[in-house]
Amino acid sequence: MLDNQSMASFAEMRRIVADFPGPDQEAAAATAAREGQLTKPAGALGRLEQLAAWLATWQGRTPPGINHPRVAVFAGNHGVAALGVSAFPAAVTKQMVLNFTHGGAAVNQLCKNADADLRVYEMSLDQPTADFTQGPALSESETCRAMAYGMMAVEPGVDLVCLGEMGIANTTAAAALAAALFGGTGSDWAGPGTGVQGAQLSRKAEVIDLGLARHRAVFDDPLAVLAALGGHELAAIAGAVIAARMARVPVLLDGFATTVAAATLLKLDATALDHCVVAHCSAEPGHRRLLEKIGKQPLLDFGMRLGEASGAALCIPILRAAALCHSGMATFAEAGVSGKD
Amino acid sequence: MLDNQSMASFAEMRRIVADFPGPDQEAAAATAAREGQLTKPAGALGRLEQLAAWLATWQGRTPPGINHPRVAVFAGNHGVAALGVSAFPAAVTKQMVLNFTHGGAAVNQLCKNADADLRVYEMSLDQPTADFTQGPALSESETCRAMAYGMMAVEPGVDLVCLGEMGIANTTAAAALAAALFGGTGSDWAGPGTGVQGAQLSRKAEVIDLGLARHRAVFDDPLAVLAALGGHELAAIAGAVIAARMARVPVLLDGFATTVAAATLLKLDATALDHCVVAHCSAEPGHRRLLEKIGKQPLLDFGMRLGEASGAALCIPILRAAALCHSGMATFAEAGVSGKD
Repeated sequence: MLDNQSMASFAEMRRIVADFPGPDQEAAAATAAREGQLTKPAGALGRLEQLAAWLATWQGRTPPGINHPRVAVFAGNHGVAALGVSAFPAAVTKQMVLNFTHGGAAVNQLCKNADADLRVYEMSLDQPTADFTQGPALSESETCRAMAYGMMAVEPGVDLVCLGEMGIANTTAAAALAAALFGGTGSDWAGPGTGVQGAQLSRKAEVIDLGLARHRAVFDDPLAVLAALGGHELAAIAGAVIAARMARVPVLLDGFATTVAAATLLKLDATALDHCVVAHCSAEPGHRRLLEKIGKQPLLDFGMRLGEASGAALCIPILRAAALCHSGMATFAEAGVSGKD
Repeated sequence: MLDNQSMASFAEMRRIVADFPGPDQEAAAATAAREGQLTKPAGALGRLEQLAAWLATWQGRTPPGINHPRVAVFAGNHGVAALGVSAFPAAVTKQMVLNFTHGGAAVNQLCKNADADLRVYEMSLDQPTADFTQGPALSESETCRAMAYGMMAVEPGVDLVCLGEMGIANTTAAAALAAALFGGTGSDWAGPGTGVQGAQLSRKAEVIDLGLARHRAVFDDPLAVLAALGGHELAAIAGAVIAARMARVPVLLDGFATTVAAATLLKLDATALDHCVVAHCSAEPGHRRLLEKIGKQPLLDFGMRLGEASGAALCIPILRAAALCHSGMATFAEAGVSGKD
């Protein structure tokens, strides 16, 4: 969908979002009809039933199925890391990418647990974004290139995509992006991230406020905000969400930074995240605030705050369970079970 | 542990619970030590870290692992079903057992999803308990026999056991048991179960109150309460919880009826359920109330209310993920990742 350089502009991205396919009402209706015949009291599987309907609606098929889930982790570095906003040095981004490659990270185990494939997208780690307190983190063309790169994660055959990130200092970028998109100040959205507190946490909030003050003029243009305050991995996540919608692939969003990146699109179209479920509510305090703003109910509330798609990968078996119950259960007629008195 | 008839008494059951093995402090300490070296900020996996520690503590080994999870569903019938407290006829208990056997129920799909084995224990379905408004549902020897039967679910090699039930009218028995153990009246604990409402729900509360009034004299003896108001499948669950503790097998408890049955043991020993995690908070309103009373935080809150161990089976992959992250992640030293600044 972005097959030549001239298309890679914010205008083109906006056009794509405006043309998003809607829900598959036929699949939704077929799912609801079958659900009512399965051997259980109506509604007794609760959220699993809702998830089965959601999968069918956004896969555009019934029954839904999860046969090829992909976990995509985008890694980027941030100019603001130099301002002392993280508990870990920026070199850790690259080191963790190597850890993913060698199978040593949490997400490797979580993909093994879920029988999912893992793709790690290393994005110009030696060229961090610009310091957003001094100017835009990324240019329009850099942002669009990162979005296009993110789109590549949604390859043919993938029927569920889990999105996550790795990037030292990216909770600072995400908090700034959230404040610009949804209102509030640095102290409203800054959290411990990898573990900052006290004076360092105050410094993080102050850095966010400096970024907000500098870029206030573009706050009415969500993609310009993404460029000004975001990062390579955050733009890639927005791109992956777009590509998934076009390809009818449901999305599991991970934690705070991932959800903020995706929420950029909500400011272009209020239905832009209808094909996305938020896997968990992170311990990063901005995440709960953000989920309230965007009206998304997470599946888990486990106090996780690792990023790297860990919460999303953890939830794959839950979605697979929803699909299996819907597709594999017997109907009352098939099983010879009596209905309600 | 119950190898001759003379042992199958409440006195013997009480002695077993009083002699419960405690937590394996060595395994707990080893788990905590390893956890701190894994490539993530301290505590960043939140509840997954707590679950790994809990598994190690109650499996008595480190690292913990889930290689042979078992899902045990106990099915029983209840005399009070004749009083019109359920939306489905009592014949459905047997029909659903056949559905389990033929692979048509939700729990079959959830076991497939979790790579778990399923055992269904059919308990005297043609001989329901006595109507507890007229007398004790079960005698002491019937109760002990059911408990001993439940103990058989914990076979050698099983390293996690998920407990659940099937039994038309058993939310009535469970609500009565909960009220007798934790206080309150029929209307405090009665819920829709398979779907009763209005006058039928009032009748259900009234039946519970009749049972409470009849058996108040035994309320200070938890096992006598289990006999008076419980049922075969509920006693079996209590037995399985006991056997799991003795065999160092962690337990996932399913919904309202299962948790009430297990909670009987809490009235014998306040630490009796330390080896148990409650998988989910059911939509049956008594479950949330009960979880507050016993201080257990469920893993999921999905509005499920099916029973048949469905919520517990759904959570197996979460526990397996916790064990895999703990055992399979690299340490900072192994991965060459820099620590906190």
